[in-house]
Amino acid sequence: MKPKLVRGTRDFSAEIVNKRNYIFDILRNIFSKYGFNALETPAMEALNTLTGKYGDEGDQLLFKILNNGDFLSKANKNAIEKNDSKQLTSSISKRALRYDLTVPLARYVVMNQNNISFPYKRYQIQPVWRADNPQKGRYREFYQCDVDIIGSDSLINEAELTQIYDEAFDKLGLKVIIRLNNRKILDGLAQYCGKPDLFMPITVTIDKLDKIGWDGVEKELQNLGIDKIGFEKVKAVINSKDLLELKQLFSEINIGLEGIKELEIVKNFLEGYQFKNEFKIDFSLARGLSYYTGCIYEVEVDTSKPSQKNIKMGSIGGGGRYADLTGIFGLKDMSGVGISFGAARIYDVMEELNLFENIDFNSSKVLFLTMDEASLSYGFKAIQKVRAAGISSTIYPKSWKFQKLMKYANKVGVPYVVIIGSQEMESGKLGFKNMINGEQLALTIEEIINYLLE
Amino acid sequence: MKPKLVRGTRDFSAEIVNKRNYIFDILRNIFSKYGFNALETPAMEALNTLTGKYGDEGDQLLFKILNNGDFLSKANKNAIEKNDSKQLTSSISKRALRYDLTVPLARYVVMNQNNISFPYKRYQIQPVWRADNPQKGRYREFYQCDVDIIGSDSLINEAELTQIYDEAFDKLGLKVIIRLNNRKILDGLAQYCGKPDLFMPITVTIDKLDKIGWDGVEKELQNLGIDKIGFEKVKAVINSKDLLELKQLFSEINIGLEGIKELEIVKNFLEGYQFKNEFKIDFSLARGLSYYTGCIYEVEVDTSKPSQKNIKMGSIGGGGRYADLTGIFGLKDMSGVGISFGAARIYDVMEELNLFENIDFNSSKVLFLTMDEASLSYGFKAIQKVRAAGISSTIYPKSWKFQKLMKYANKVGVPYVVIIGSQEMESGKLGFKNMINGEQLALTIEEIINYLLE
Repeated sequence: MKPKLVRGTRDFSAEIVNKRNYIFDILRNIFSKYGFNALETPAMEALNTLTGKYGDEGDQLLFKILNNGDFLSKANKNAIEKNDSKQLTSSISKRALRYDLTVPLARYVVMNQNNISFPYKRYQIQPVWRADNPQKGRYREFYQCDVDIIGSDSLINEAELTQIYDEAFDKLGLKVIIRLNNRKILDGLAQYCGKPDLFMPITVTIDKLDKIGWDGVEKELQNLGIDKIGFEKVKAVINSKDLLELKQLFSEINIGLEGIKELEIVKNFLEGYQFKNEFKIDFSLARGLSYYTGCIYEVEVDTSKPSQKNIKMGSIGGGGRYADLTGIFGLKDMSGVGISFGAARIYDVMEELNLFENIDFNSSKVLFLTMDEASLSYGFKAIQKVRAAGISSTIYPKSWKFQKLMKYANKVGVPYVVIIGSQEMESGKLGFKNMINGEQLALTIEEIINYLLE
Repeated sequence: MKPKLVRGTRDFSAEIVNKRNYIFDILRNIFSKYGFNALETPAMEALNTLTGKYGDEGDQLLFKILNNGDFLSKANKNAIEKNDSKQLTSSISKRALRYDLTVPLARYVVMNQNNISFPYKRYQIQPVWRADNPQKGRYREFYQCDVDIIGSDSLINEAELTQIYDEAFDKLGLKVIIRLNNRKILDGLAQYCGKPDLFMPITVTIDKLDKIGWDGVEKELQNLGIDKIGFEKVKAVINSKDLLELKQLFSEINIGLEGIKELEIVKNFLEGYQFKNEFKIDFSLARGLSYYTGCIYEVEVDTSKPSQKNIKMGSIGGGGRYADLTGIFGLKDMSGVGISFGAARIYDVMEELNLFENIDFNSSKVLFLTMDEASLSYGFKAIQKVRAAGISSTIYPKSWKFQKLMKYANKVGVPYVVIIGSQEMESGKLGFKNMINGEQLALTIEEIINYLLE
């Protein structure tokens, strides 16, 4: 039998794990500094915790766990007779794999509401699973990285999350644009152009502005029944220079003014803060079909920077406020706001920009090679001193001929090699080769340690 | 709907995640230093990669993933008619959750055999899932932590893994007993007492010596058809003082002598190594029904140390050599040796011994509290300086009355509190309270930072 990976999943070798952990460690440190706490939830959730939370399509994409034992004894016979897989599912599966980190957070908050001191600030970095059709950059198992504040409607939280984005991408070595908008402004816009009921479809259309341009937006709005005058109003709102200008357009639209007010408060909190990246309020930001109700964020790579001009990548972060996170589980009036880091995309961008290049991942620096049994035993004692000095090192577990050993050393690509044979044992001066520049020295083990520590 | 956890699974709050990561970080650092590389494999494996690898019982304990979409269209109709859940499974499920880290390792090695430079030294720390009946200390989702060397039969690897155990438990602050034996000695023992075919049942019996004592062992061996003379021979082998004494008993038993020789080689490699824990060769160590073929390890807490005398815990680590790890996937002659760390048990022991007590988990040190809107804005600017100094801190997102704020501060249990109202803003001297000893000072934000950094 030839073993295979499950379609859409990947093995992660040391190089990838190390680079990914480098990103996560930076993020974790920042989250901690801002007073957020770690949370980990189980891979499996009750099927009825997850179904209905991601729309019909989402339900189809859940990986469901088959009940153990004699699952047929409780199977829905009627569904079997009708060959109805969908109807049968809930009678033979009561668990599914985590689809995102938001629903598990809501479940956790509701279950632990009496022990949590609100506002609850948590971050969570764990894989999720989706039975999506795999394609380039889309996998069935991938990490999500979320930061949320639950149980506070203060806009100071929005300001804090903005700073976290700014500091995190700075520490990762990327220049980004952090865009902020407010769903209430999009709500106001629907009212302003006379179609308050069309909030969602208008929002979805504006979300595509980048891709389809104003001509495309005009056409789609036309199809929604919005005439030329309405379209010009939409355009005027989106193109408003600043909050002041928009305030004049919205002078009669309360919900829109509320959105403006919220953005002003966030801006005021951030006054005097030295941004390391570009921060801009962008009235065209819409965040598609999501469930946000207040401020919304999106982060993209700043391609105006010469070093980043070739990066072609959509958003690498996003989030916003949701007025009612835990309502689905019966706990009302629990406002939350959160942001996500698109871990896989951030990884890809950093790889493309060679940002991992000068990081020390503590991989083996020295390879010990020995030419006979006695040298192997000698080398094993010598390497203990190297490791005691904290230097990552490996000894080839067999003595061999010199040529064979060097061939192996070249293949594994280690920066330094120590070679030991009977002569080296006798003199105490070991062969020490720099595999990058070819330099060869005869050094005692203490000299080698000093050399490597420098 | 009242949300629930899936039976046998747990949420991990910040405290637990931090403590667990503290353990894993120590282990990862040591594994790296010894030249091991990280590997992560997907949660889902092909069902036929896993079935048949853990015995019939193991197959029952796999969490199988229901195929997506119209899975009934390919279902085994015959099995449905016969109400045979077991037979139906493979036609409606082609994936299952990882049951351990060893089979995924074997799969990875076989799939990547042309790119790996052997010996392949990897460590892997990931959760596994088993549909076992949950009970105290036994969960359906738990972490495993494995270190293996694949593709080398040199006993230097056994010596290295022994050092890793010794160093790891030392760094974790535990005193342990590392026990080593060799399956070939147990093989020799079966021959020596005249029952070479009974190797497995004899091994399983000896494994129980701790629990059932010599009387119990004698009875069980009797049931296997081993007479008094045979039993005395078993006892003589197990009670041999050292390798030399055992060598005399085994003078005619080649496989036994081979086991002795292997242990001698490991001991020779370790000569001069300063053990921080007790290391002993123990001929009664058997490792139950496992698939080991050479050296075997087991680690337990050393209860002879006064501080640890109350610890009641079985083995907290174990492992050994398996001659043919990858044969199940068609790659022959790939010897491996590996050890595991029982992460959950190590965690529990460390908790019981208060070994996490003095570790700084970078949780919030300061809580900023403000008494009016202007102070909130002022405080948000001040806390940025504290965070810029790397100090983990939180600002309560709403201004409130003093009494309410202090009540909150007492509830969340933070060590320091900064209090800001109009007076404090005016003077620049902020209220700074040590919540542990009650001390209260008026300090500038710079003074507060200096205080906290000291």
